[in-house]
Amino acid sequence: MIRVAILGATGYTALELLRILLRHPDVQVTALTSRAETGHVVDVHPSLAGRLDLRFENLSPHELAARADVCFCCLPHVASMESVPALLSAGLRVIDLSADYRLNDASVYEQWYGHAHTDSARLGQTVYGLPELFGERIAGQNLIANPGCYTSTSILALAPLLVGGWIQPTGIIIDAKSGVSGAGRTPKTNILYSECNESISAYSVGTHRHQPEIEQVLSEASGHSVEVLFTPHLTPMDRGILATIYAHPKRAASLGELTTAVREFYSGKPFIRIVEHLPRTKDVAHTNYCDIAVRIVRDRVVVLAVLDNLIKGAAGVAVQNFNLMCGFAETTALIV
Amino acid sequence: MIRVAILGATGYTALELLRILLRHPDVQVTALTSRAETGHVVDVHPSLAGRLDLRFENLSPHELAARADVCFCCLPHVASMESVPALLSAGLRVIDLSADYRLNDASVYEQWYGHAHTDSARLGQTVYGLPELFGERIAGQNLIANPGCYTSTSILALAPLLVGGWIQPTGIIIDAKSGVSGAGRTPKTNILYSECNESISAYSVGTHRHQPEIEQVLSEASGHSVEVLFTPHLTPMDRGILATIYAHPKRAASLGELTTAVREFYSGKPFIRIVEHLPRTKDVAHTNYCDIAVRIVRDRVVVLAVLDNLIKGAAGVAVQNFNLMCGFAETTALIV
Amino acid sequence: MIRVAILGATGYTALELLRILLRHPDVQVTALTSRAETGHVVDVHPSLAGRLDLRFENLSPHELAARADVCFCCLPHVASMESVPALLSAGLRVIDLSADYRLNDASVYEQWYGHAHTDSARLGQTVYGLPELFGERIAGQNLIANPGCYTSTSILALAPLLVGGWIQPTGIIIDAKSGVSGAGRTPKTNILYSECNESISAYSVGTHRHQPEIEQVLSEASGHSVEVLFTPHLTPMDRGILATIYAHPKRAASLGELTTAVREFYSGKPFIRIVEHLPRTKDVAHTNYCDIAVRIVRDRVVVLAVLDNLIKGAAGVAVQNFNLMCGFAETTALIV
Amino acid sequence: MIRVAILGATGYTALELLRILLRHPDVQVTALTSRAETGHVVDVHPSLAGRLDLRFENLSPHELAARADVCFCCLPHVASMESVPALLSAGLRVIDLSADYRLNDASVYEQWYGHAHTDSARLGQTVYGLPELFGERIAGQNLIANPGCYTSTSILALAPLLVGGWIQPTGIIIDAKSGVSGAGRTPKTNILYSECNESISAYSVGTHRHQPEIEQVLSEASGHSVEVLFTPHLTPMDRGILATIYAHPKRAASLGELTTAVREFYSGKPFIRIVEHLPRTKDVAHTNYCDIAVRIVRDRVVVLAVLDNLIKGAAGVAVQNFNLMCGFAETTALIV
Repeated sequence: MIRVAILGATGYTALELLRILLRHPDVQVTALTSRAETGHVVDVHPSLAGRLDLRFENLSPHELAARADVCFCCLPHVASMESVPALLSAGLRVIDLSADYRLNDASVYEQWYGHAHTDSARLGQTVYGLPELFGERIAGQNLIANPGCYTSTSILALAPLLVGGWIQPTGIIIDAKSGVSGAGRTPKTNILYSECNESISAYSVGTHRHQPEIEQVLSEASGHSVEVLFTPHLTPMDRGILATIYAHPKRAASLGELTTAVREFYSGKPFIRIVEHLPRTKDVAHTNYCDIAVRIVRDRVVVLAVLDNLIKGAAGVAVQNFNLMCGFAETTALIV
Repeated sequence: MIRVAILGATGYTALELLRILLRHPDVQVTALTSRAETGHVVDVHPSLAGRLDLRFENLSPHELAARADVCFCCLPHVASMESVPALLSAGLRVIDLSADYRLNDASVYEQWYGHAHTDSARLGQTVYGLPELFGERIAGQNLIANPGCYTSTSILALAPLLVGGWIQPTGIIIDAKSGVSGAGRTPKTNILYSECNESISAYSVGTHRHQPEIEQVLSEASGHSVEVLFTPHLTPMDRGILATIYAHPKRAASLGELTTAVREFYSGKPFIRIVEHLPRTKDVAHTNYCDIAVRIVRDRVVVLAVLDNLIKGAAGVAVQNFNLMCGFAETTALIV
Repeated sequence: MIRVAILGATGYTALELLRILLRHPDVQVTALTSRAETGHVVDVHPSLAGRLDLRFENLSPHELAARADVCFCCLPHVASMESVPALLSAGLRVIDLSADYRLNDASVYEQWYGHAHTDSARLGQTVYGLPELFGERIAGQNLIANPGCYTSTSILALAPLLVGGWIQPTGIIIDAKSGVSGAGRTPKTNILYSECNESISAYSVGTHRHQPEIEQVLSEASGHSVEVLFTPHLTPMDRGILATIYAHPKRAASLGELTTAVREFYSGKPFIRIVEHLPRTKDVAHTNYCDIAVRIVRDRVVVLAVLDNLIKGAAGVAVQNFNLMCGFAETTALIV
Repeated sequence: MIRVAILGATGYTALELLRILLRHPDVQVTALTSRAETGHVVDVHPSLAGRLDLRFENLSPHELAARADVCFCCLPHVASMESVPALLSAGLRVIDLSADYRLNDASVYEQWYGHAHTDSARLGQTVYGLPELFGERIAGQNLIANPGCYTSTSILALAPLLVGGWIQPTGIIIDAKSGVSGAGRTPKTNILYSECNESISAYSVGTHRHQPEIEQVLSEASGHSVEVLFTPHLTPMDRGILATIYAHPKRAASLGELTTAVREFYSGKPFIRIVEHLPRTKDVAHTNYCDIAVRIVRDRVVVLAVLDNLIKGAAGVAVQNFNLMCGFAETTALIV
């Protein structure tokens, strides 16, 4: 039985983590931290009534290490890199859901996040927790950088075609649509119901922080310098991401060849489904699946990928990483 | 041409007021106030791009009086009664959209709002701005208390049957469902998209402040001491209120008699529509209409009423009051 | 391993049944029937891609009996009573999700459903599958009448207070709000997105077929002749029912006493949660829980209950019945 | 006073037309046709209760000509070209909202719509009713082809930059997101509430009929052979279209130059607003505005445009065409 703590446990990702971990046969959740909240878990997450008898606490790394073996760190960026070194020193294994350990280069981090990185020695040394690409490196790690939600969708859609040399590594357009839960649970005007409902809009055009992450991971995976234009959109739904991706073919290929290439790339990967139909975010809601379809339109390859931003885009993949890290079957607690 | 100012102009009601006043042939909007916001109107209300070239300002009553003849006061309660006396003294006519001048009794105000009333001399002297009931008193007034949204829905549904002696004044149950815009635009966790979407729940059961307002006005209108049990619900939609109301009949009546009674009560009232079908909030969205239907089920009279909480429940009725106050046709700018 | 067939497997309830049964350790789904559909399950239910390799078939009772031990019958009413006798004769055990075996009296059935009952000998003999009330009768049955969604919500909320003699059995008002999935998957104008979205309305006021079912079961459970006024509302959300219920107290009681009475009534029932806060449909979405809260307002007892209409209101309780019928732990596959 | 008839008056576009025409000072709506419906307008459009006392009728062209001067034809494609010649012969002026008279080439029509065109002599002779581009040709016409909703959004966004030679005419990607009302009011499974809600997906990838229309009009306007890759998406909201468009620059230009070019192109056009912020569909909902913003990201020009698919994308532009056709001010009844 692995004892698990969740840091920053009041948000939506933490709630999904709790739901998954409560059904994990080898896990006991032993601590939930929050800086602001001191109440019972049910006060913040009423859907967990009767499921878990814990309160939110403000715990030091040593207090946490006394109670838990593994930490899921759901703190925001910056807060995360301020906590992780001490957690590791205290002997905890950490799955970090923030962006703080995803990028390899401290200057790129500083450029996109506006903060100097305070634990830069770990950049480039930390395994990027996308199991479909880097699964064999995850076992035995003490720190995993859990990927971003838009990032996972984009990388899972593009990796097979880039690695296989089917599409050009530059000129790629990723037009992504996300549900509102991706923006978190801290009250802000732009995520009020009456602002988001009945409305779709782009945001952070050309400036979203998932762009360098996508490029870094795809470049590393494919051996080519990948360049994408990434446009996120806020969509009036709770959860789900759809990425509609446009790429130039690198060599002539039929739709059958492309689909087969993607299918074979993910052969044996339990959470990737290559589908014939056009995927809907609803088809993967509340699951750890990523559904991918390919089309050829005129002179372009169009890839469509959907996943649940809170599950496969955050909490689900975190548990997938946890399973690999700790030697459990990859799908434990993740196929329901 | 009447010069109009809006106080507290950053919220949803103010936005709807602006939309209506921009099409009013006898109005010029000359000032928008805000304590926090100093930008251009389009920064807060992008739907007004190109419609209105004003900035938010923090103006004193005298500055306002120099610019405007009539003020729509969209401040929250307490803030309103702190401003209104000075506005009136400065010579402005005021339509107050807060709750501060709706109740007749300072002690009832203090009990439900938790603040001593600081302008209690005007309580009981201020006309309650529900034109269908008190229209003839509005002309020429300098201060109008604009009614609450749940209140208007409930009163419009019940007044004809109570005044006509068709139903018992006690034991009335009002089960009301409102869209989220009724909760305002100040960021709070409970009105985030990801909290409200895909969810309905009751709130303030037995403690909502519109209950004493409903009872006061219906008691005054009918001459009986009216008692209601009022339950509001937060519904996943932008706008609209549906009140489903259950009352005991006072004397035997057919559905035809009841419907006729309601229809005759509102004869000549342009914004009340007595309908045969079961009304939907969508049917009155973005309009100043209130649709009402009556049913008899077993031993109860069931009244169903819908209106748009931001229009007929707030900004629309405010302009209706403005029209009557200033001598314009009641429907000016309100039927589109 | 129990072999299971689903009849009428193209609808939303069948989809939820499949999701639950796919995680049931003692079940193998062996047949899916449809009169109209002949394709693969993924063509109709794309969320099941890769989960289940079955096609829809039009199978006779004997073909079904050769393949399955238990049938979940998701046919509409009338179609169900035309099929169930032959299924039973062929040796299948049946959980019927239609209304055909819920009422005890053929004349009541005919009055509310507009069809003469063609298998009336089984009326009054069939166990009503609400495990929290009739759990001990379910083991070993060959036919279970699975309850309606509004019905379950209403009965679970009211039974403890009626059975305990805390509230009057008459004059009860049930104001219920349901998500749109409760209306099924057959295309009709009134359930189009553009009709339901941004709108709430009552429907079937005084004529909804769940009313006699609620009264029958509560009368049977409490030993009093229960009379309710039931008003359903179509709410703009996928799933969830909230019942806001108003009853007259039968004897003086504090809120503490009432809450304790409800809690004790459901002691040991794993899917009923008595909560202090006002329950939201979102808190029970995708779960088999029913959350119940009690309030006293003026002279009324107000009970609020929420459940997921497709799970605890249909597919979840069906599997709960299945578990009891077949001797599995009641919660098998139902707490995730 | 112009007498107006609406053909195919039961759909969403017809409802919006009615709302607009009811406030038009120079219009009297005198006939509504439907093949299936014979009831009163309020039976189908309850929001029009009390506004219009007409029934749906099945009228011949000659009966229509006796009652009306101008017809808005809201029939589906094919049905439209079967009706329009007789309407014109009977002396009516026609604004056709179907696709039947938009394309210049009968073979292109046949290829994309799967029907031989039966009135092909009028193809290429009919003015395409996009007033911002072809306004000066509209006055005095007897037949106008009202543009498609995706088409208008895309053309309005791209025309200034293509005409001005700022972007390449090929390699353009249009990623468009539409609310569900664009799919009409005929019951089909894919537009049920429970299918669309909480889901976004692409559809008709590479095969949507608005693609050739966009290319034809933009080629004609710019004098270059324009090629676009158009991907529509079904978005969980009632109304609104957002087009996110990616183009290659043709010559070096700053964001300021591009924005100015677009602004000047639409100088004097009352319904086009060039905005600095990223536009949201909500900002133009229920209006005849199209909001456009430009960005430069890496080596691409990104144009974002929003409009209300039922108003500026259908009924609003139809009335704009009507105003120009009949000599009324272009904005009559369209700015509220």
